[in-house]
Amino acid sequence: MKKLINKPEDFVRESLEGMVAAHPDLIKVNFDPTFVWRADAPVKGKVAIISGGGSGHEPMHAGFVGMGMLDGACPGQVFTSPTPEQMLAAAKVVDGGVGILYIVKNYSGDVMNFEMATELARSEGVRALSILIDDDVAVKNSLYTQGRRGVGTTVLAEKICGAAAEQGYDLQQLANLCRRVNISGRSMGVALTSCVVPAKGTPTFQLGEQEIEMGIGIHGEPGRERMSLKSANEIAEILVLSIVEDKSYQRTVREWDETKNDWVEVELTNPPLQAGDRVLAFVNSMGGTPISELYIIYRQVAEICRKCGLQIVRNLIGAYITSLEMQGCSVTLLKLDDEIIRLWDAPVKTPSWRWGI
Amino acid sequence: MKKLINKPEDFVRESLEGMVAAHPDLIKVNFDPTFVWRADAPVKGKVAIISGGGSGHEPMHAGFVGMGMLDGACPGQVFTSPTPEQMLAAAKVVDGGVGILYIVKNYSGDVMNFEMATELARSEGVRALSILIDDDVAVKNSLYTQGRRGVGTTVLAEKICGAAAEQGYDLQQLANLCRRVNISGRSMGVALTSCVVPAKGTPTFQLGEQEIEMGIGIHGEPGRERMSLKSANEIAEILVLSIVEDKSYQRTVREWDETKNDWVEVELTNPPLQAGDRVLAFVNSMGGTPISELYIIYRQVAEICRKCGLQIVRNLIGAYITSLEMQGCSVTLLKLDDEIIRLWDAPVKTPSWRWGI
Repeated sequence: MKKLINKPEDFVRESLEGMVAAHPDLIKVNFDPTFVWRADAPVKGKVAIISGGGSGHEPMHAGFVGMGMLDGACPGQVFTSPTPEQMLAAAKVVDGGVGILYIVKNYSGDVMNFEMATELARSEGVRALSILIDDDVAVKNSLYTQGRRGVGTTVLAEKICGAAAEQGYDLQQLANLCRRVNISGRSMGVALTSCVVPAKGTPTFQLGEQEIEMGIGIHGEPGRERMSLKSANEIAEILVLSIVEDKSYQRTVREWDETKNDWVEVELTNPPLQAGDRVLAFVNSMGGTPISELYIIYRQVAEICRKCGLQIVRNLIGAYITSLEMQGCSVTLLKLDDEIIRLWDAPVKTPSWRWGI
Repeated sequence: MKKLINKPEDFVRESLEGMVAAHPDLIKVNFDPTFVWRADAPVKGKVAIISGGGSGHEPMHAGFVGMGMLDGACPGQVFTSPTPEQMLAAAKVVDGGVGILYIVKNYSGDVMNFEMATELARSEGVRALSILIDDDVAVKNSLYTQGRRGVGTTVLAEKICGAAAEQGYDLQQLANLCRRVNISGRSMGVALTSCVVPAKGTPTFQLGEQEIEMGIGIHGEPGRERMSLKSANEIAEILVLSIVEDKSYQRTVREWDETKNDWVEVELTNPPLQAGDRVLAFVNSMGGTPISELYIIYRQVAEICRKCGLQIVRNLIGAYITSLEMQGCSVTLLKLDDEIIRLWDAPVKTPSWRWGI
């Protein structure tokens, strides 16, 4: 294992310490329990947004803490869910008096712990709701997931809901918006190489010299198919068509219902993308793929979208949700409307995302 | 070779096409000769800044074309100097009537071709000057270089001079500023893995499972020493101390003298860093190292600077000057003053760098 780390067990702590040392004007960090929060939190009268999950996907989530995005982030150990204790502690620090929205990627550990944190927060008088992101079209049910995994749309939901919170949306409006972003987004990824979890020290999976894993999960979970290495154009086509040809996706998820004061099953449907739709195209590096290659992928993503009648009106290209040093990329297409575009364009200032300020 | 590319010979062109497809509001591209330029160029009455060099270091330089940074970028093939023809063509397109500053990394091919381009531009009535960046303390004279190589300080010079041009500095003032940034900056890098040049298809150099190359060049040129894998803290210490302990560095470089209408030898000296100096600390990914690891390096860079009495008042952490998918990082320390800090903080809007707008 070759990494710029000290002891594997110190990876998460030291990386966060470095991030805070670099951005003391933007974020603060607490350890035991571990969470990162906006240096100016709590923002009175603003709904606070908290996300979190296993580490190893940086800059998500801690790199997105700041004005216009997250109020708090709860990093677990690498590829390991954070605890309800972390989520509750973060909520208490960032609560501006009008509630907390937890944005949760659909992995069983994350879901369980954020549900618990939602209940704990409410029991302590902090109004909290949690919304699930489950946008990965590659597979249904996976190593750590019931249903679809939560991937690239998480980044977009954090940006869009962060802007909305800044603009005064109340908690229920934000939950509705986040749910709408989730059912408007679809993603799929590909791995050229495995990542190496620091504590393990060996590759999570084995790929031959000419093999790729199509539909990879962000923890190295198996995808749809192991296939021979393909050109960037072929890879982009598989990723985009898997998204575009994905049928109406229906499932039920658990959400807290404030009127019933209990968890309820909510039916969700992603309508299929249609010619004429405006979309945001997000081409994301898995960590080890440089931006030069992402642009080659984007070039073909744009071409295929054009052929499908999809109008790319916004894009995002770079390393936002990674799998340590894995080589590969993911593509997310998010259906847009005027409201979401307006929120997307709003200013943001975090360690890894700074626009307009 | 596993990359997200199509034919190796199309790597540069397709990557640029993707970049322009993603950012048509910011940049335009021309092929044969190849250059990228600001969509709103020429900006009348503003000195235009052009840089360039071999491709494979993205986002540098094309990703830095836009308001507050570069007016043009001339990408060569991977790790291959661009031609004087490219540089001249770019100059003619972006010239706002008050001259061109070429920012040139110290590699023999780049130096020769930018000198020729400077002469060609002048012969066609476009006032042009070129300033060299030679900031890599690792080695003197290298595979492609007389003197020290030009690395991380290039990125900082492009940002700082870009801001100054926007604020109305004239050509001579900009050349003076760029020279001053160069002699205020020092860098050193380390490689954990080799990169693979697409046209070659095999690693540029071989490193054992437990080996690193300390002082690596951005084209995989040999560094100071091949050594056994070390902890992030040890690596950060070697990089920072190599910079901090670097003595007064004197050399002569060739610059165009407008009063003599000829090339002259200019004596340059980097004074050593001293306790009490304010610095910008730049921790850069070589392309394949994720930001989580960069923050672990930054954490120790900050600690060692503190011990040396250096005051880090600005920082930059991310992948800005890369070597394809190489794993590793570089550290640059740039001595700051009030003028440079003010220019650093100025707004910028390019495909890969967007602040304040």
